Amino acid sequence: MSLTEQPMPLPGDPIAAVATPVGVGALAVVRISGEGVHELADRVFRKAGGEAGALAVSPGYNAHFGRLYDGEQMVDEVIALVFRAPHSFTAEDMVEFTCHGGPVVVKQVLKLLLDTGCRLAEAGEFTRRAFLNGRIDLLQAEAIGEMIHARSESAWRTAVSQMKGDLSAKLESLRERLLRSCALLELELDFGEEEVEFQSREELAMQVDDLQREVARLVDSYQHGRLLSEGVATVIAGRPNAGKSTLLNTLLGQERAIVSHMPGTTRDYIEECFIHDKTMFRLTDTAGLRESGEEIEHEGIRRSRMKMAEADLMLYLFDIGTDQLDEEVAGIRSAREDHPGARFLAVANKTDRMDTAEALIEKVRMGTGTEVIGISALSGMGLDELKLRMGELVRDLDKLHEASVLVTSLRHYEALRNAADALQNARELIDRQSETELISFELRSALDYVGEITGKVVNEEILNTVFAQFCIGK
Amino acid sequence: MSLTEQPMPLPGDPIAAVATPVGVGALAVVRISGEGVHELADRVFRKAGGEAGALAVSPGYNAHFGRLYDGEQMVDEVIALVFRAPHSFTAEDMVEFTCHGGPVVVKQVLKLLLDTGCRLAEAGEFTRRAFLNGRIDLLQAEAIGEMIHARSESAWRTAVSQMKGDLSAKLESLRERLLRSCALLELELDFGEEEVEFQSREELAMQVDDLQREVARLVDSYQHGRLLSEGVATVIAGRPNAGKSTLLNTLLGQERAIVSHMPGTTRDYIEECFIHDKTMFRLTDTAGLRESGEEIEHEGIRRSRMKMAEADLMLYLFDIGTDQLDEEVAGIRSAREDHPGARFLAVANKTDRMDTAEALIEKVRMGTGTEVIGISALSGMGLDELKLRMGELVRDLDKLHEASVLVTSLRHYEALRNAADALQNARELIDRQSETELISFELRSALDYVGEITGKVVNEEILNTVFAQFCIGK
Repeated sequence: MSLTEQPMPLPGDPIAAVATPVGVGALAVVRISGEGVHELADRVFRKAGGEAGALAVSPGYNAHFGRLYDGEQMVDEVIALVFRAPHSFTAEDMVEFTCHGGPVVVKQVLKLLLDTGCRLAEAGEFTRRAFLNGRIDLLQAEAIGEMIHARSESAWRTAVSQMKGDLSAKLESLRERLLRSCALLELELDFGEEEVEFQSREELAMQVDDLQREVARLVDSYQHGRLLSEGVATVIAGRPNAGKSTLLNTLLGQERAIVSHMPGTTRDYIEECFIHDKTMFRLTDTAGLRESGEEIEHEGIRRSRMKMAEADLMLYLFDIGTDQLDEEVAGIRSAREDHPGARFLAVANKTDRMDTAEALIEKVRMGTGTEVIGISALSGMGLDELKLRMGELVRDLDKLHEASVLVTSLRHYEALRNAADALQNARELIDRQSETELISFELRSALDYVGEITGKVVNEEILNTVFAQFCIGK
Repeated sequence: MSLTEQPMPLPGDPIAAVATPVGVGALAVVRISGEGVHELADRVFRKAGGEAGALAVSPGYNAHFGRLYDGEQMVDEVIALVFRAPHSFTAEDMVEFTCHGGPVVVKQVLKLLLDTGCRLAEAGEFTRRAFLNGRIDLLQAEAIGEMIHARSESAWRTAVSQMKGDLSAKLESLRERLLRSCALLELELDFGEEEVEFQSREELAMQVDDLQREVARLVDSYQHGRLLSEGVATVIAGRPNAGKSTLLNTLLGQERAIVSHMPGTTRDYIEECFIHDKTMFRLTDTAGLRESGEEIEHEGIRRSRMKMAEADLMLYLFDIGTDQLDEEVAGIRSAREDHPGARFLAVANKTDRMDTAEALIEKVRMGTGTEVIGISALSGMGLDELKLRMGELVRDLDKLHEASVLVTSLRHYEALRNAADALQNARELIDRQSETELISFELRSALDYVGEITGKVVNEEILNTVFAQFCIGK
């Protein structure tokens, strides 16, 4: 695992992949990239009018209408858009074929290109080449992935900003200042025993303070950034038959529900998201844990517990008509105590069936010291107020909403945390008037951690982690 | 509902739509078409380097790298590909934006273009404009739709041939010959009482014979064409608990199953298709009809019956271990008699549970005079032989496999049937030495029916029928 400041470009053999989503549509894009792809494409592409070899002699950014042929069999009518290195997404020679959008057509076009000498691209290989060839930095590569997977307008906006290079610029300025301090310290080391100081230790301490503040701001922005890209982790807890599933379905049904596995993870449960007033809530059903505890495997229980421990917001649902209201009061108190990290809201269900609902709710309020909202999950009564309060409760998680640059990725967050630790060490060493070598080592280490984020400092492991999350065609 | 030989182009106001399938992918294409779209696109597109107005002055088939902006907010990095009328798909001015492929990104790009002055395109509106502007004929427009929805390689091949214009050329030559005969007859009418004959009635009769043969060949090709594009309609019949659902699942599971609503229809049941040895079988589950007859509404029963009546192939499944084998024999006989149009195969299930299975199968064979295949739907035993026989039984439906030009659409089939009837009428009138007006009327009518197919003769009703089946973006 060697660190290198100069990434080596891959050989760039011709690769092909479908770049558009799978499904039925008017058009699809199949693209090829690498050495000799223009000549390779000419073997199967005939321009309208019959000219052969049109792509090899075409300037970049020029499109050609024609047909793809597998021998004598016409495969499709396409537009072939030619890119010439380095003016392409991968900075290599490329051709993008816009063909018709049906699954069978697309498969045939891809098959033709594979038969002609392309290799099927690996997941993320186009973007990896763009990075290795210096077209984009690692942050921008990741931003493309986040943009594509964005499930809310705010997540998309953050990804756009990262793709534009806002975070890259911020980190680059951070890196340059770190580098200057390092360089001055290392210069002192070169002078060996002469004990010169190119920078007073007070000056250095102030600079490290500045850097620490800036890194801390970025580290803090992660909570908000994560909420934007992953949504507010919301757990609906409560005893059997409280109506948890009904509430979940009603919340999802009223808003535009997005059902999905979270991208890039291998969790085996499904989380469902809905967006209310620009905030995305990621709902997890904990029903399984409580209602059929014995039948579920340990792994499942462990995961559900983990979900609850990670909750940003917990809704504790209970049936207001229960004859065990005291037990519910106890349940609410212990759920709240067990999850001090989560915002908490008790929700009384089935209030439309009880004339005495208001009085009972008041009783629970008094018994728990907790806010209680009355709803009917079935009829939707009280749902608007519930959603309003859910939004208000997590609003302060958005306290950094104004920050223009956000950290949204766990990888960046961890690198920044490591950089912060190294800076803290350096700061303490300065205070203790430790040796220059030790201070320099910590600053250099902070520098490397920051460089890991943009890819100035890369190793195979980091690259594999980043690009393995991409799908084929990216 | 007026017939016209000269379709009137629409005004061509700017329309926009997403052209690629919905979902997550590296890229998506959003296209705009109509008057002034280059200038309109320039309002939100800024070319890398900052040039404004790049698209309005760009030659056709030139691409530009840049960004879309909603005011100051960057929306995405895109490639804008410029087309200039008439050299575009719609024959109008067009721009195709290749943007990033996530659902939120695509929505934002589309929204931006709609806010800037485009109207969301109606279903099929791009292709409709291509047709109205003479870029493609109606057959080719339909072929694009069939190509996109093709679920097998053979269906795709037929659509490619139709898109290339093979069927169009065939019909055009038919139309020209009809037109010549018509013209000569109508010339005779112009000469009124002089009783000239520009063509002997014997000659005319021979020509009509020729035309009849050719139309008949096309009409006959429909059965095969339909099988290619829709699959062999296969119904699994049988009494409750025979194992019908298990057989269906096993057949689908062993082959690459394609689960889908049939495109362009509003049927409310789901059919599932699988492809075996290049033949697509479209399986319909009739379980509902028999197993809970009373609970189902009349409409559902009517539809299931209709499905059975339309079956190309019926598999009658029974449990070989039943104690009512005589009743099964009777059931097989009546199912077969009730559906004389379908290929028929009796299938004995659960044969792995009976030592005497072979003897019992033989008994059913004798009692019904029908081929019986023994399987175990659960274990998969005998499934290979079953699929082999299914393939062989429908092979002769493929007797026109060699035909280069196939009719695959019900619309074309019906128009050709009408043309055939008109030709038959004309032929009989010639034999009866009827008046020229009457013969001419029938030939003219045949001519119109053939013209309807390619769109030489169009009316709004035909156009609406054709393009309503398209999805938005096509």
